[in-house]
Amino acid sequence: MASKLAAECIFCKIIKGEIPSIKIAETASNFAFFDIGPLSEGHALVIPKYHAEKMHEIPDEYLADALPLAKKIAKALNLDNYNILQNNGKLAHQEVPHVHFHVIPKPNKEEGLVIGWLAKSANMDKLKELASNIKL
Amino acid sequence: MASKLAAECIFCKIIKGEIPSIKIAETASNFAFFDIGPLSEGHALVIPKYHAEKMHEIPDEYLADALPLAKKIAKALNLDNYNILQNNGKLAHQEVPHVHFHVIPKPNKEEGLVIGWLAKSANMDKLKELASNIKL
Repeated sequence: MASKLAAECIFCKIIKGEIPSIKIAETASNFAFFDIGPLSEGHALVIPKYHAEKMHEIPDEYLADALPLAKKIAKALNLDNYNILQNNGKLAHQEVPHVHFHVIPKPNKEEGLVIGWLAKSANMDKLKELASNIKL
Repeated sequence: MASKLAAECIFCKIIKGEIPSIKIAETASNFAFFDIGPLSEGHALVIPKYHAEKMHEIPDEYLADALPLAKKIAKALNLDNYNILQNNGKLAHQEVPHVHFHVIPKPNKEEGLVIGWLAKSANMDKLKELASNIKL
């Protein structure tokens, strides 16, 4: 699988080795390394070797390998509680415009990802209409 | 691919159709439907047709298809800002003990996922040692 990388992207430079990183592993389609601004010890990133800002722009063959690699990291770190998070867009907390999957250990309440969950009641009729209009 | 479902799991019952859901799509290995306690309109769930509580317990062939399905949903809903989230363990905010990937639209600051990001400085020497000990 050929990589498709961008010249000026910090994560593409990490993949190419132009910027140093603490590499964990790589496959033909993805690269994994430790986040240097971690939310908890062992906070890792899995990034496709394909430059795109958002998840829906990544070809399926790169996406298919991202979770199996994240799984290997979770097992290697012997994680019990952890979050997998991928943010798309600044409004959604994305900081680097190259798709990255966070593997964030949650060892206790104080460390790791903090989640605010303001659930609402669903408008069931509206959702049914939305679902009926989706053609995948 | 054969499903591996549990008799008493609410998400397995949704996959089997024993509990109604607003289905979006399904593949041989995954099932997608709308969350009825959404964080924002269009909040969807992608669940493997394999009963396990945590991501690292799911066989790769089920994981490989989860993100491509989430991607199709993001495209069908024409999402721009959104989060992909998968929680493992009660401490990490998991509520239903069957692996589920949230696709959460983030239309504005008030709706969608709220993230608390308490980043720390990495102990680089410790991370290098951790990376060198990981055998995937």
